Amino acid sequence: MQLIETVRALQERSEAERAAGRRIALVPTMGALHAGHLALLEEARRRADRVWVSIFVNPTQFDDPADLARYPRSFEADLDACRAAGAALVFAPASAEMYPDGMQTAIEVGELSWPLCGATRSGHFRAVGTIVAKLLLAAKPHVAVFGEKDFQQLAVIRRMVRDLNFDVEIVGAPIVRDADGLALSSRNRRLDAEARRQATALVQALDAAEAAASDGVRDAARLLSAVRAKIARAPRAELEYAELRDPETLRPAPAQLGGPTLLALAVHMRLADGGAERVRLIDNRVLRPALRAGGSAG
Amino acid sequence: MQLIETVRALQERSEAERAAGRRIALVPTMGALHAGHLALLEEARRRADRVWVSIFVNPTQFDDPADLARYPRSFEADLDACRAAGAALVFAPASAEMYPDGMQTAIEVGELSWPLCGATRSGHFRAVGTIVAKLLLAAKPHVAVFGEKDFQQLAVIRRMVRDLNFDVEIVGAPIVRDADGLALSSRNRRLDAEARRQATALVQALDAAEAAASDGVRDAARLLSAVRAKIARAPRAELEYAELRDPETLRPAPAQLGGPTLLALAVHMRLADGGAERVRLIDNRVLRPALRAGGSAG
Repeated sequence: MQLIETVRALQERSEAERAAGRRIALVPTMGALHAGHLALLEEARRRADRVWVSIFVNPTQFDDPADLARYPRSFEADLDACRAAGAALVFAPASAEMYPDGMQTAIEVGELSWPLCGATRSGHFRAVGTIVAKLLLAAKPHVAVFGEKDFQQLAVIRRMVRDLNFDVEIVGAPIVRDADGLALSSRNRRLDAEARRQATALVQALDAAEAAASDGVRDAARLLSAVRAKIARAPRAELEYAELRDPETLRPAPAQLGGPTLLALAVHMRLADGGAERVRLIDNRVLRPALRAGGSAG
Repeated sequence: MQLIETVRALQERSEAERAAGRRIALVPTMGALHAGHLALLEEARRRADRVWVSIFVNPTQFDDPADLARYPRSFEADLDACRAAGAALVFAPASAEMYPDGMQTAIEVGELSWPLCGATRSGHFRAVGTIVAKLLLAAKPHVAVFGEKDFQQLAVIRRMVRDLNFDVEIVGAPIVRDADGLALSSRNRRLDAEARRQATALVQALDAAEAAASDGVRDAARLLSAVRAKIARAPRAELEYAELRDPETLRPAPAQLGGPTLLALAVHMRLADGGAERVRLIDNRVLRPALRAGGSAG
C-alpha cells in the first residue's frame, strides 16, 4: 500500500492508473476508521480496480475549535485497517498541502446547505464542498464513495458534482450500525458508558417513526412527536433537530407525507450527568409511508 | 473539426484523447472571435496536440441584462475561424446544458475578486470562476489559454486553479492590439466611428504612464494623473477606474512604486454625443519602474 502526502504526486499516480486503463474509487475520510468506513471500502472495491482512501481531518469544516481538538485520531491504526482492507493507496496530506498560503477560493452549494446541520453549523458545508472538490481534483477518481449517515453532506456533494461537471460517479453506502442499532461514528469513541447506552435513543426514535409510517401514519406532526418522545426518554440527550424533509431537495415535507421522506436527527449527548461537555450525533432514515386504502398518493 | 454540444460527449472525447496520449489545450471564449482570440489559439497549438475552443456566452457573468443582449454574436463565422486556425473541436453548449435545473453551486475567489472590475460588477467573478471551473471539468484539458487583457479574470482563474487542485496549466497570452494600439475586444464592434477613434485614449494613457515609469517616475499619484489627463482628452470616454495594483495580489500599490505594478483601466465610451448608451472597455499594462541612481529597490 502506497502512502502519498502531496497533491502533485497523487495526480501523477492517478494519471498513471488511468493511462493503464484501471478504475479508481476514492473513499474520503477524516480517519478514526471504524466498520462503517470499512463498508465504504468494500463498496469501493466492488466498483473499481483500485481503492484509494484519503485521511484528512479538515479543520475548516469544524465550526467549534474544541470539537476539532477532540476529534478522534488514530493514524497508524487507520493505515493498518486500510492495508488489511486491500486499499492500494492512502492519501494523507498535511494541512498546509491542502490550504496553501493565500488560499481564498471556496465552493458554495446553495439551498441544500441551509437546513438541518447547515442551520447551526455556519460555513460547514462550504468547507465540506471545498475540501471534497479538492480531493476529487487531486485523486481524479472514477468513483467516490460516501456514507449515508451524513445524508445532507452526500446530497450537497452530489449536487456540487452535477452542477460543476465533475466527471465522477458519487456512490452512497448504507449506514452501518452496532448490534444495538447505534449508527457507527468516529465520535462514538468519545461517549462514556452511560451516554453510549442512552445514545440508542436515536435509532429507537427512527425505528418508532418507521414503524408508525409502515402502519400508515402520514401525519408529520404525529411522526415527529413519536420521535421526540423516544429522545425524551434519554435524559443525557438534547435534541438539536428532528425534521422531515424531501430526500432530494431537503425542502420541508408536507403536513401529510406523500412519498419517501427523510427523517433526520441531530442530538447532543451530555458526557457525565450535568456536565457541559457534549458529543453531537446524527442519524437518519428515509421513511416510505404505506398507502392505506382510501389514502392519497400525494 | 468536431462540434460538440454536451458535457458528457466532451468528457468522453477528452478521455479518448488522453488515453491516446495526446495533450489538449482549451481556449474558452464567448465567441465573436477576433485576432486576439486567434493568438490564443496559436498559443494553444504551441502547447498541445489538440486545440479545443469553447464558445459560450455565459449569461450569469453579465451584471447588466442589456449588455448581455447586445453582446456581439457571430457563431458561423466563429466556427469558420476556428476551423481555419486548425482547431480540432468546438464545444458550444446551450445555456440549459451548462445551467441544469436546480443548479445551486458557485465558486467564489475572495480578495482577488473584490477590486477593479469586481468593485462595480457584482457577482461577475463568482460567475466567471464557476463557468471556467465547469468548462475545465467538462473538457479536462492539460492546458487552458486566456488573454491578458482580462488581467483580473486571469488572476482569479489562476488562483482558483491552484486553490482547488485543478490539474491544468493556465497560460496567459499577451494583449493583441489594432494598428492604432486599441486592445482587441469583441465589444469594439459596438463602437461608432467617433467612439472608436477616441477609444485610443486608453492605450495612450497606458503608454504615457509606461513612458513616465521608464523615465524613473515612481510616484503613483503622478502616474495616475498622467493617465487621467489622457482619458480627459477623449470627451466620449468616462473613466470608471484607473488603478495601480500589485500584479500578484491586486492589492493597492504603494505611493512610491517599488517593483512591477499593474496599471488597470476601465472606461465607458459613449455612443453618439450625449447618448446614454455606452460601451465598457478595459485595458492594462504592467509597469516596470526604472531604478534611478539613488532610488530604492522597494
